[in-house]
Amino acid sequence: MMDDNRLVLLRTRHKGKTKEFLAPVSNAPHHSEFGVTDLSVLLEDENLDAVTSHMGQEFSVVSPRSPDFFRHSKRTGAPMIPKDIGLIMAHAGVCSSDNVLEAGTGSGSLAIYLGFVAKRVLSYEVREEFTKVARNNIEKAGLSNVEVRCGDLVEALPSLSEEFDVIILDMGGSEKAVSGCFEKLKKGGFLVTYSPFLEQAAQIREEIDKLDFFDCRTYECFEREISFSSRGTRPSTIPVGHTGYLTFARK
Amino acid sequence: MMDDNRLVLLRTRHKGKTKEFLAPVSNAPHHSEFGVTDLSVLLEDENLDAVTSHMGQEFSVVSPRSPDFFRHSKRTGAPMIPKDIGLIMAHAGVCSSDNVLEAGTGSGSLAIYLGFVAKRVLSYEVREEFTKVARNNIEKAGLSNVEVRCGDLVEALPSLSEEFDVIILDMGGSEKAVSGCFEKLKKGGFLVTYSPFLEQAAQIREEIDKLDFFDCRTYECFEREISFSSRGTRPSTIPVGHTGYLTFARK
Amino acid sequence: MMDDNRLVLLRTRHKGKTKEFLAPVSNAPHHSEFGVTDLSVLLEDENLDAVTSHMGQEFSVVSPRSPDFFRHSKRTGAPMIPKDIGLIMAHAGVCSSDNVLEAGTGSGSLAIYLGFVAKRVLSYEVREEFTKVARNNIEKAGLSNVEVRCGDLVEALPSLSEEFDVIILDMGGSEKAVSGCFEKLKKGGFLVTYSPFLEQAAQIREEIDKLDFFDCRTYECFEREISFSSRGTRPSTIPVGHTGYLTFARK
Amino acid sequence: MMDDNRLVLLRTRHKGKTKEFLAPVSNAPHHSEFGVTDLSVLLEDENLDAVTSHMGQEFSVVSPRSPDFFRHSKRTGAPMIPKDIGLIMAHAGVCSSDNVLEAGTGSGSLAIYLGFVAKRVLSYEVREEFTKVARNNIEKAGLSNVEVRCGDLVEALPSLSEEFDVIILDMGGSEKAVSGCFEKLKKGGFLVTYSPFLEQAAQIREEIDKLDFFDCRTYECFEREISFSSRGTRPSTIPVGHTGYLTFARK
Repeated sequence: MMDDNRLVLLRTRHKGKTKEFLAPVSNAPHHSEFGVTDLSVLLEDENLDAVTSHMGQEFSVVSPRSPDFFRHSKRTGAPMIPKDIGLIMAHAGVCSSDNVLEAGTGSGSLAIYLGFVAKRVLSYEVREEFTKVARNNIEKAGLSNVEVRCGDLVEALPSLSEEFDVIILDMGGSEKAVSGCFEKLKKGGFLVTYSPFLEQAAQIREEIDKLDFFDCRTYECFEREISFSSRGTRPSTIPVGHTGYLTFARK
Repeated sequence: MMDDNRLVLLRTRHKGKTKEFLAPVSNAPHHSEFGVTDLSVLLEDENLDAVTSHMGQEFSVVSPRSPDFFRHSKRTGAPMIPKDIGLIMAHAGVCSSDNVLEAGTGSGSLAIYLGFVAKRVLSYEVREEFTKVARNNIEKAGLSNVEVRCGDLVEALPSLSEEFDVIILDMGGSEKAVSGCFEKLKKGGFLVTYSPFLEQAAQIREEIDKLDFFDCRTYECFEREISFSSRGTRPSTIPVGHTGYLTFARK
Repeated sequence: MMDDNRLVLLRTRHKGKTKEFLAPVSNAPHHSEFGVTDLSVLLEDENLDAVTSHMGQEFSVVSPRSPDFFRHSKRTGAPMIPKDIGLIMAHAGVCSSDNVLEAGTGSGSLAIYLGFVAKRVLSYEVREEFTKVARNNIEKAGLSNVEVRCGDLVEALPSLSEEFDVIILDMGGSEKAVSGCFEKLKKGGFLVTYSPFLEQAAQIREEIDKLDFFDCRTYECFEREISFSSRGTRPSTIPVGHTGYLTFARK
Repeated sequence: MMDDNRLVLLRTRHKGKTKEFLAPVSNAPHHSEFGVTDLSVLLEDENLDAVTSHMGQEFSVVSPRSPDFFRHSKRTGAPMIPKDIGLIMAHAGVCSSDNVLEAGTGSGSLAIYLGFVAKRVLSYEVREEFTKVARNNIEKAGLSNVEVRCGDLVEALPSLSEEFDVIILDMGGSEKAVSGCFEKLKKGGFLVTYSPFLEQAAQIREEIDKLDFFDCRTYECFEREISFSSRGTRPSTIPVGHTGYLTFARK
């Protein structure tokens, strides 16, 4: 039986906690704190929904979704987190017919999220080692509609013959790419930039203001988990802090 | 030439502000503060990207996206707003192959957003007048993959023969639907509920805790617009207040 | 009997709501929607704890506190609000032996709050009409330890012979006063500035960084009211938006 | 020369950071990472504003203020933090003529803050070992107007012959003390309670609603530090999470 390089989410409960592993469906056994688990059975029967380790721990076999790839993929730095990814999807209205351009790829977290929604995603990353990590993560996610190119978006833009519905910039020097991105956006399409610092957001907006964009808006988004326990209800005392500012402008 | 019931976004600048209209492509002229605009020309040439009113105001013609339908569709009440829609998309990882179940439809805002992303959306709404408004909004959005049924989800659930990747509840009495939804969720799929009040979120979580769900989490999300002007940079003084609590649980 | 210019808080319940008036204890009757109320009886007996209007509405007579002067005093603009006043008091540790310098006074809201806590408050205001309003508000609050001077703090600083425990600046051009304030601060004393915009906070910090200040920190503070009702518990949907940034530096 | 048990703040800069010690003015030398520092010189000359350790590190001698006692005093648990202390001071209008009642004392953090503002503070703490820590902290702060009593406030209330301007409850079972506190509040005075959980706040409000209180409001308060650096300006990524809900009601 051939390996299919597809990943499955192995999930089990142990001492009141959920334990999850994102594992390749392959002839090679999976090793974890629960011992050795033979996943080759999944090559024979892809509908199998449970496997058992040699130590007797039963794992539920689940098809992974975007948040699983986000949590379990190899990382190259701090990726954009779901609250910000969601804000992009909602304010730009990312949809299944969209052709999306992104830079920089990092480990591919956002590209994978986008790949599961859009028709096609083209992503630029200047650092070659990040490109490799991202391509590997994307391949494991089973996405054939996401292409990662190693290179500088600002230099690459003039030679791109396509137009895009949404362009998302999460890189240093985004402000230098704004006018080039304007050229490659479809009318009605969205440019989105992510900036940890306000000064960068301000520089980007200055570039946006020079062009014929509509409705430039900058947002920050907070997310609080609410804790429900026998002691009572309250916001979690472990909050997520500031991540970045998202700027949206529409052609 | 036949009307095609397709909507276009007519966009223009006037006195430093953007003016937008979501208008049907039809033989009937469009009326606005800028006078009468003949849109029948768009039936002849669907690539036309500008039209002019009889008063000489030029409108850019743009293909509408989810946020346009959100802003310009007829409403029946307070719809779920983009920050919360985005959080659902990101935490549940809504994707283009998903079969999504939703209740209650309201005016169809969330259903339209989901329809632009997922493979199929089935939405329940108990109030017949809302059903009509929603169906009309969905048809105008050009979505053939979104079906609205008039009825009570709790009663309808046992007779549904499909399984869903994501089920989203935004209705009173959501807690009564939790166990029925569990039955209809695919393994690895997400149940998401939206509740303005904490007590409702707590009741829902109680029902979730009785079933074999994984990783139940409740979030609230804040969004702040940042204002950049010649006076300086600061958060907008007009914030969006509390909307609701989103609870996620995975089968 | 002589008028004593003291104010009392008249408080009553009407149709499920609290109605409050801050009224001078005087021979002149008080007029309100509940008719005419004779307050001269309070000149005769200052311990009287209720009065009745000619229409029969009974008012509870209460000694006003800082929040009452804040809510009911005449205003000249947007005053600093309690959440920010509280943050100043706590982070600077304003105490009853403090000599406090403030600029600009506005209608005296912060000066009144400070006057009820500190030993002495000296406050500068450039606009003469504001000075008058503030002096009147301060007199009505019965505070003899708060002095308002009409003038520009930056010009006045060199001639001040006192030293201060806390200096609070809420005015345009605060950055120009930083070095002069440093000279007049006691060692261990706090400089506090309030700035609606980040750029102003940044300018102030630049000036602070040139001097021998310790522990410069800038905060913003949010306050959310929680609503408890028969429908359930949730944060109020009417939030207070951004007010300003508070910068603290210690000599 | 006699020890005076007064504390001073010794402050120095070391490798770009501020180092602070709250040290007793005494014949016993002070030990720190900078070696031994003789503080007996401060007994001879209380205006001395610098001392030097045997290793040659110079310390600035500063009169400590409330925030210093907050940061450097011995703790028994998680004390109320300045943002919440400030909100109490501002919304209740705590002032220099106030007679304040508090429970539970903990290590005395809030009591010390209040002692530096109000005329008198009476504080109850049920745990004897906390009482000792608090009394010691209060004595070191030089406050003779703060009294800590070991006992249960609910039991002690009936026997108290005083009336209070402000009563602050930060203890389990606060709801049981509400009616007793009402009796001991002056008209116009404030009851303030601090509760980590919403259920406790709800119980307290139920008790408040049974009595003739005015204007019951519950708040939560967030504080964000803004970081200014050569890289740019942004909110600190290390936020303070949820602390508690503050409920205010006025007699």
